[in-house]
Amino acid sequence: MALSEFELIDRYFRGCGAKRADVRLGVGDDAAILDCPAGAELVAAIDSLVDGVHFPHGSAPASVGHRALAVNLSDLAAMGARPAWALLALTLPAADESWLSEFAEGMAALARAHDVALVGGDTTSGPLCVTVQVLGHVPRAAALLRSGGEAGDALFVSGTPGDAAAGLAIEQGKFTFAGEAATYLRERFLYPAPRVALGERLRSYAAGCIDVSDGLLADAAKLAKASGCGVEIGYDEVPVSDALVSAVGEERARELALTGGDDYELCFSVRPAHVGRLLAELPPQRWGYRRIGSLRESPGADILRDGTVMSFSHSGYDHFMTPS
Amino acid sequence: MALSEFELIDRYFRGCGAKRADVRLGVGDDAAILDCPAGAELVAAIDSLVDGVHFPHGSAPASVGHRALAVNLSDLAAMGARPAWALLALTLPAADESWLSEFAEGMAALARAHDVALVGGDTTSGPLCVTVQVLGHVPRAAALLRSGGEAGDALFVSGTPGDAAAGLAIEQGKFTFAGEAATYLRERFLYPAPRVALGERLRSYAAGCIDVSDGLLADAAKLAKASGCGVEIGYDEVPVSDALVSAVGEERARELALTGGDDYELCFSVRPAHVGRLLAELPPQRWGYRRIGSLRESPGADILRDGTVMSFSHSGYDHFMTPS
Repeated sequence: MALSEFELIDRYFRGCGAKRADVRLGVGDDAAILDCPAGAELVAAIDSLVDGVHFPHGSAPASVGHRALAVNLSDLAAMGARPAWALLALTLPAADESWLSEFAEGMAALARAHDVALVGGDTTSGPLCVTVQVLGHVPRAAALLRSGGEAGDALFVSGTPGDAAAGLAIEQGKFTFAGEAATYLRERFLYPAPRVALGERLRSYAAGCIDVSDGLLADAAKLAKASGCGVEIGYDEVPVSDALVSAVGEERARELALTGGDDYELCFSVRPAHVGRLLAELPPQRWGYRRIGSLRESPGADILRDGTVMSFSHSGYDHFMTPS
Repeated sequence: MALSEFELIDRYFRGCGAKRADVRLGVGDDAAILDCPAGAELVAAIDSLVDGVHFPHGSAPASVGHRALAVNLSDLAAMGARPAWALLALTLPAADESWLSEFAEGMAALARAHDVALVGGDTTSGPLCVTVQVLGHVPRAAALLRSGGEAGDALFVSGTPGDAAAGLAIEQGKFTFAGEAATYLRERFLYPAPRVALGERLRSYAAGCIDVSDGLLADAAKLAKASGCGVEIGYDEVPVSDALVSAVGEERARELALTGGDDYELCFSVRPAHVGRLLAELPPQRWGYRRIGSLRESPGADILRDGTVMSFSHSGYDHFMTPS
């Protein structure tokens, strides 16, 4: 039996995610009504996932639901914001109940984990496309910006970038690899963990911050450019997971870590005077981040290996450009 | 030359719409930072327009940009909220600069008219789909809800519903009609005027409120159901424009007014004790609204004509249902 749009929203999205006292009115009216905390600034991000562009056609619906929220939570993490509420616009070819149920649960599980309430939704028929908008808050004037860096800052990245790109290639059947490491890499693409807790803590230490979604090199270059400077990354400092090295070897692992995309890690810069405090108060082995280089005065983004500058054929993923 | 996603956002969407002092950071970082007014509640809506579903394939890009924002402003109007900020997620097959330029200007003109700033955007390649998320505010506990009505309330509607449905049929070539009236009807579909000023004023008079997007009868029934009652609408009270009557005749005009869709008018209920004040302080001929019926205790939605109940074959547009 076909479900109407109203039944759909009611069944799968009303009450999805965390219950929050600051939601005056959630899904079900023309708009949601939310209580903004006094003294805070509102932080808002929006991102779409398109079938066949951002995830392989036929992806597990729970992964699509998870990722659609995760990529937005990652944007808030990059600002040092605490997420609170999400709105969903879902376009799908037919009201497939089993797909919807798994999709909603994938999104709801991540929402509950980050205390996010789904407060509004719109479902329409059309090619599969998921847009999520996340709202959060940050103490006044405390947000981390891309433009906060300056020459001399130490540059860090969280996690092990490149895993997701390899996981996607396995998912797409472009790269044949099996076993435990393959499962780990696929999970890194299918269920990325946005660095929300790290982002909030970094407000006390970091100067500039960006989330790594288009490839570490490209996103570090964006942070540097927004900060009016350039960036140098040490090839040997780029963190790579054992799973990635076992899958593609050391050389290709570092290339994927620098250019892969879909990582949803944080790249951030810290003034030299604050590096000691950062390392002492947020131990890298516990919080999962590593120094990879520095911001510098001269523009551009370079990878240094054994004292020389390396070159790459492309520096990140852009939805309207193909690598030349 | 193909434009990259970053160039696209920069060229067409940075600084789009009104300039507002409460935008701490707009398009260009991972998220926007916004100042919430003290003592206000935040009101948030999200809506997608899909090519070929919500507008005919090949529609004027300025109309697509206008409508994508208008349908969201209409949701805020229904809450009595004042819009402030918008975020855009745009999926389009190719970065066509002339299409984008007209689309952005269509959205920007309406945004400026309502003092709305575009503060965030995401562009991706894929089938044409436009999702807009609008944020606004309302004094604490003052929002108009669908559930605010009660039996005995007088029911009103703004504007002349049905025009947009006829205009869409002309646009689609399903209905051949030319001349000034045809131009008027087409404009009513292509460039709907969300009733933001009326919605804000209605906070002082109305009890329940909903925006009319799926057909007046269906949306009035939703308001009644959310308010725990039913609704009666007088067939002869339903407002129809001269243009619509000249296009399809009196009988079909009223049917379209009741069931057409895409109107983006407001349907609202007012306690009997407040009707006199409403009519005196917001003169209907100036504000463009009319009494069409009442809420009643027994559930359901009926059209009354010459003392008898009429029946219609369908009551509104639902994206996943076809009329039986």
